[in-house]
Amino acid sequence: MSRLYWCEQAWLGGARVNSGVVLEVNGDRIRALTSGVLSPPAGSLRLSGLTIPALANAHSHAFHRALRGRTHNATGTFWTWRDLMYRTATSLDPDNYYRLARATFAEMALAGIGVVGEFHYLHHQPCGRPYANANEMGSAVVAAAQDAGIRLTLLDTVYLHGGIDPQTTDGYLPLGPEQVRFSDGDVGCWAGRVDELLAAVSSPTVRVGAAVHSVRAVDPTSIEAAAAWTRHHDAPLHVHASEQPAENQQCIALHGASPVEVILEAAGTGENVTLVHATHASDHDVALLAEAGAGCCLCPTTERDLADGVGPAETLANAGVGLCVGSDSHAVVDILEEARAVELDQRTSTLKRGVFDVVSLATMATSGGYRALGWEDGGTLAPGSLADFATVSLDSVRLAGTDAKNVLASVIYAATSADVTHLVVAGRPVVVDRTHTSVDVEAELSAAVSEVTAS
Amino acid sequence: MSRLYWCEQAWLGGARVNSGVVLEVNGDRIRALTSGVLSPPAGSLRLSGLTIPALANAHSHAFHRALRGRTHNATGTFWTWRDLMYRTATSLDPDNYYRLARATFAEMALAGIGVVGEFHYLHHQPCGRPYANANEMGSAVVAAAQDAGIRLTLLDTVYLHGGIDPQTTDGYLPLGPEQVRFSDGDVGCWAGRVDELLAAVSSPTVRVGAAVHSVRAVDPTSIEAAAAWTRHHDAPLHVHASEQPAENQQCIALHGASPVEVILEAAGTGENVTLVHATHASDHDVALLAEAGAGCCLCPTTERDLADGVGPAETLANAGVGLCVGSDSHAVVDILEEARAVELDQRTSTLKRGVFDVVSLATMATSGGYRALGWEDGGTLAPGSLADFATVSLDSVRLAGTDAKNVLASVIYAATSADVTHLVVAGRPVVVDRTHTSVDVEAELSAAVSEVTAS
Repeated sequence: MSRLYWCEQAWLGGARVNSGVVLEVNGDRIRALTSGVLSPPAGSLRLSGLTIPALANAHSHAFHRALRGRTHNATGTFWTWRDLMYRTATSLDPDNYYRLARATFAEMALAGIGVVGEFHYLHHQPCGRPYANANEMGSAVVAAAQDAGIRLTLLDTVYLHGGIDPQTTDGYLPLGPEQVRFSDGDVGCWAGRVDELLAAVSSPTVRVGAAVHSVRAVDPTSIEAAAAWTRHHDAPLHVHASEQPAENQQCIALHGASPVEVILEAAGTGENVTLVHATHASDHDVALLAEAGAGCCLCPTTERDLADGVGPAETLANAGVGLCVGSDSHAVVDILEEARAVELDQRTSTLKRGVFDVVSLATMATSGGYRALGWEDGGTLAPGSLADFATVSLDSVRLAGTDAKNVLASVIYAATSADVTHLVVAGRPVVVDRTHTSVDVEAELSAAVSEVTAS
Repeated sequence: MSRLYWCEQAWLGGARVNSGVVLEVNGDRIRALTSGVLSPPAGSLRLSGLTIPALANAHSHAFHRALRGRTHNATGTFWTWRDLMYRTATSLDPDNYYRLARATFAEMALAGIGVVGEFHYLHHQPCGRPYANANEMGSAVVAAAQDAGIRLTLLDTVYLHGGIDPQTTDGYLPLGPEQVRFSDGDVGCWAGRVDELLAAVSSPTVRVGAAVHSVRAVDPTSIEAAAAWTRHHDAPLHVHASEQPAENQQCIALHGASPVEVILEAAGTGENVTLVHATHASDHDVALLAEAGAGCCLCPTTERDLADGVGPAETLANAGVGLCVGSDSHAVVDILEEARAVELDQRTSTLKRGVFDVVSLATMATSGGYRALGWEDGGTLAPGSLADFATVSLDSVRLAGTDAKNVLASVIYAATSADVTHLVVAGRPVVVDRTHTSVDVEAELSAAVSEVTAS
């Protein structure tokens, strides 16, 4: 059975926005698309404002949502922030993790996000022992995304070491007490567990991919094994890289090579690889990324919040590296804000405007992220594409005065997640008139956050 | 007659937030304040969420609101953006300027802004000839703020030259065709006109102050005269300074001194002086500012948008320079966003967190701005203060999970103008339950922007 949506305006890719676009949705796909239809056909749902492909949140740590507003009491660095973050990680169990992730993913739905890449390393009990079902935490994430109505790529993460220390025998620190729950012991055990998860997941809106936490937490041999696993399963591989200068220094001290060099050398081919951050990547690193065909996920609101710095977005784009964005620590859940922040932070660092045009930013926020998460058919409005789309109202004070010529620019530069009115994922309406169809998001967020932060 | 407001929570300055605060308002002042009142007294208006002093927007060009979303089609710099801005300036007359400013100020009211500093240089007809009433444009701004319900400091601006050119006889370019309407010919005529405006303005919510556009547009002798006018009238003096590297270079080429040096040398004492931007101020400039007792207004969302760069906010604060913020070009009207952007942009440039604590950011956004605009009694919740306050809801997904210990940090770092529910200015409710009491803001913005951008 088909369902019709009439979009007052829709962005179909490229610089133009079309008026009166009818999307015919069949199952989880867009079957047909017609422009220039002046009024809503009978039986169609009217989408006022600008309809765009659903936004893609390519890098998420769902549990960080509990930290929002709670890390600004003192001075510090990324590393002191990490101590706070670890404290929250320790308080999680499969039940409260499910509730927190479900509420967080539902907040993403309200923000027009159709797919999330969850960089998941909270695998085991706080003491490090596996749960009875070794994938109980991952299954909680899967259930959370399904119940929140959004598409998920679970990036199941290899995490083996407590950091780099060239003075030790193997070059790594042992896991700290808060880190033991992240580790499977070795990459073989990690792969065995993820194979079980893969076998258990059958939803058409869930993919299982892999992540390597970072060169701090995973040695090159294990990176190589994880990469082989992803090639075997045709799955995406995401890796934190060069978020902090200290990571670069430690990596060079141990390996005589930068994090990007170590990762790409170990991973072999790079077409399924997305490096997250690359804030302190060198020009040589960028050239290697481009040569490998790897992509890069920028998380500018987090990179601001954690004092990471501003990454080489212009250099990456000029080299042809595919870009996407993520809300990462969820200090903010607003992919429009991430997209404009990529450009705005380039403006403050290069003193030029228009480093990225609006279409490039909109592409990062949509198809760029879908592709990085292994959903090649998503993030575009076209016949055959996944039926994932979001509508942004043009009626608020933020967008008032927008005209047809600048509607996409206005949405990218002036809209916020508060302006998203509708979200359809896999053909199913998830947000209608700013309301989630199945989750009381504010109430569930309040309860879930309180539960894990009470002390 | 008194009116009572019961605030579920209120920020009274300092790190603490109080619960159950009753504000007794008499006329335009807070008469009394009581904390710990568990439920709303009879006859009081209940303010759920966090009530803070009204936000201060210390730097505004109201007509730039028409440019929102319209300047991102091409690459460029501050200077190519300025060409677009001048085109809009040319389309304004007292009637459409009134409507645009009124709608823009009403958008500010919805964002919890109780006072605006309008840096006003659109004085005359496009050909440069004065209107029949030489203050017709300024009067339009005054009427717009009064009708929008917010407090105004009209910073009537001296603008005499078209830019610096050391090759010319006097060192300056003649005014360009779009600039002639900004100029009164000389600073004496400017002062005469502003004296008339001052005599004509009698509202207790309007102050007239002065601005010097910049060292590009005003010579030191005229700066000196404008500064003398402000001392005579006990009025604030605002000046754009060091927004762009080219301005510094030109100023040094002509005067052998930086913009800050030229301005402070000409202005004499600096206690009533606020420099706007100071993005490319040197350490020596900062020391001079501190010595003079001058303040600085940062406009980070505009400084991002116009590719100005990131200013030395930490150095300014460490030197003891008083800071405030402004939305300037109104790419965004959100003073909470400006405040957090001050800190976040320091984080990306210094790689440290907590350069500013939350109270410092909240102070910039409130009393810092009130003071810079000549309202010493505003921007605080205390007996005797101006009865200007705003309430931020804690109920949205953005703030869900906030607890009593981190409410101020959550509001500064996670709330947006969409979360402001109430605004009281001079004891009068201007925004109630997210609705402006007298302006249909979205409709008026749409109409006013369309009117001046149609071509």
